Formats: sequence, C-alpha cells, structure tokens
Amino acid sequence: MRIITISREFGSGGRELGKRLADELGFAYYDREIVTEIAKRASLDENYVDSVLEKGAMNISITYSSTMSHVTAINHAAASILREQQKIISELAAKGDCVIVGRNADIILEQESPLKIFVHADMESKIKRCYERAASGEALTERQMKSKIKKIDKGRYNRHALLSAIPWGDKRGYNMCVNTTNMEIKSLVPAVAEFAKAWFGKE
Amino acid sequence: MRIITISREFGSGGRELGKRLADELGFAYYDREIVTEIAKRASLDENYVDSVLEKGAMNISITYSSTMSHVTAINHAAASILREQQKIISELAAKGDCVIVGRNADIILEQESPLKIFVHADMESKIKRCYERAASGEALTERQMKSKIKKIDKGRYNRHALLSAIPWGDKRGYNMCVNTTNMEIKSLVPAVAEFAKAWFGKE
Repeated sequence: MRIITISREFGSGGRELGKRLADELGFAYYDREIVTEIAKRASLDENYVDSVLEKGAMNISITYSSTMSHVTAINHAAASILREQQKIISELAAKGDCVIVGRNADIILEQESPLKIFVHADMESKIKRCYERAASGEALTERQMKSKIKKIDKGRYNRHALLSAIPWGDKRGYNMCVNTTNMEIKSLVPAVAEFAKAWFGKE
Repeated sequence: MRIITISREFGSGGRELGKRLADELGFAYYDREIVTEIAKRASLDENYVDSVLEKGAMNISITYSSTMSHVTAINHAAASILREQQKIISELAAKGDCVIVGRNADIILEQESPLKIFVHADMESKIKRCYERAASGEALTERQMKSKIKKIDKGRYNRHALLSAIPWGDKRGYNMCVNTTNMEIKSLVPAVAEFAKAWFGKE
C-alpha cells in the first residue's frame, strides 16, 4: 500500500497539489470524503461534524461551554467523531494507493510508512490564493483574511499536537517540505511525484 | 543564470546531493573550490582560511582571544576573508549555471533568485552517514560524533544569522526541504531536478 499524506498551511495550495498528484500517479484522493463518511455513519449533519473537528475536540470545546453537562456532551461527541475519523482513515488507506489531505493522516497512518509532504507559502502568497478561490459572496478584508488563515492553521497545529510530539509544520516530521510561494501548483507535481518514486522504491 | 544553493545539516548527505544534481543538470559545482580560491588570492594557507570561516568571524572569534589586540587582528582577518568569500561566490555565480553548497550562498546571491534547497536528516541517520564516510584514522565515539555534528551545525546557524533574519534551517527560507533519513541520496536527485525545472521554468 502506497500512501501519501499532504499537510498544508491554509491557502498554500496543498489541496490542489494533492489532487493533481493523485491524478498523476493514479492514486485515490481523500479529503472532504472523510467528513461525508463520518456524517453518514453517525447520522449527523456534515456541518456539525466539521465544526466539532475544527474545534479540535475536548480541550478546545470546553471554552465554548458554560455548563458542565454541556461540556460533557460536546466532549463525548467530539471524542466519538475523532475515533470514527481515525477508523475511516485507516479503512480508506487499506483499500489501496492513495493521497490523503490533512486530518492528521500522517500520524494516524504512521505505521504504514506514508510519504509525508508539508506544503507552505508566505502570507502574501496565501492571501492572494485565498482571494482567487474565494466564493463570490465572501468579502473579507486583507486583515480579516490574514486572521482567518492564522486561526485555521492554529487549529491544525493544536489538533496535531494532541497526537504527535513533533510540531505541525516542523520539517523533521515530513519527508519533503514544499514552498509554493510564487509557484504555479501544477508545475510542482513532477517533483513530488519523483520524490514518491524514490520513497516507495526504496527497500 | 540558474543558481541552486544547497544548505545542509552536517552528515545529511547534502554535499553528495549537490554534486549529483550538478552532474545531472550539467551545472558547475562549487564547494571546496571557494576556500581554495580565497587562500590563493590572499596567499593564505587553506586550513587557516577554513578555521577563520568556521569560527564564524567577529563575534565568535572573540571568545578564543585573550588580549584586545589579538581580537582585533583576528577580526580583521575574518572580515577580510568573509568579504573575499562573498566576492568569489558572486564571481562564480556570474560565470554560469551552478550548484553551490553551503557558505550562505543562498543569502549572498538572493538577488539572483537562486533555487534554495535545505537538506536534513535525523541524528541517527547523520551519525551513520558520518561513520560511513569517516577517514580510516578518525575514531570518534558515537557521543563524540553527535557532539561534533551539533557543533558544526551550530556554527552554520550562527554564521547564517549574521546575514539573514530567517533562521538557518527554517523552512520558510527555502523552496524545498529534503529529509534524507533512511534514503539513498542518489534516489533523490530526480525529484530535486524536477523542482529546479519548475523553478527556472516559471516566468
């Protein structure tokens, strides 16, 4: 089984890189599919699953609650959704070669020796990319956009810290870090594909 | 002019990667040549030039001196050697496509938009590589080897900090970070060569 995990800063183009890489290599691609599957199995609304996953489970959801029983209920749901997510990721990975974007798949699947890629870019470049792909209704100022990017990445950092001693985005935790600043994502696919060949080709 | 700079942790195989990459792309390769050239021009011994460069110039050499006049003499030599090094690196880069390993060439040549690569590995892997390539006379314990690796990289970190606000080894300062842990260096050349194509091919 060949598994490639893509961790990425928000707005760095990591998702596009992952999708294009999967197409190039003929691998399955999983991202949003994971949330959909959790929601289906647990008979929950996708947006609810999303919001629970984004709040980073236990420790973070506490700040949103005022009564102890509420805290307990949220924690219970979050823990159960996180467990379900880990189960689904393992199941998907077992199906065959794939690229998985985000969701701490690099840590969850560690024993399968995935190729671990981290995608990042400078803030200016990320803001630009976010504007380019923003829904037409979304009208954030540059300041708000920057704040949104930082907040989302802080969440990723925190959720990663629950599972691993190496911080999210620390190069030691990845085989390759790719800086997409001023680069066209499409142009980077061959380099990552060659790295994958080297990784999966080694004995 | 296409310039690739390779920064690397001691023992990570960065020099070998740089050499192989230069061969693959038909680029000139500069590493040791720079020290030889400085020594020639200044009529100094290569070992002396090396030791001055390794002590990281001014601020660091002070701790090695006891009298003020000695400090001044060392600083003077170090500053002059560093200036000479910058000049030679710029001259070499102007000659044509090249790969330059170390010596802060990434910062010195920033205005030429070099492709900046950082090569790293975990400590176990670096120690192993150092043993493999050690001269037969060199007999360090594993503990001594680890200490040597850390000391050399600390020097690189310090010398880099004299020229740049982004720390040595911080992924934000490079286009690509390559983790060579458990990898054969040779197998990584195609991936870096493809990255170079993307970098030099962009408008």
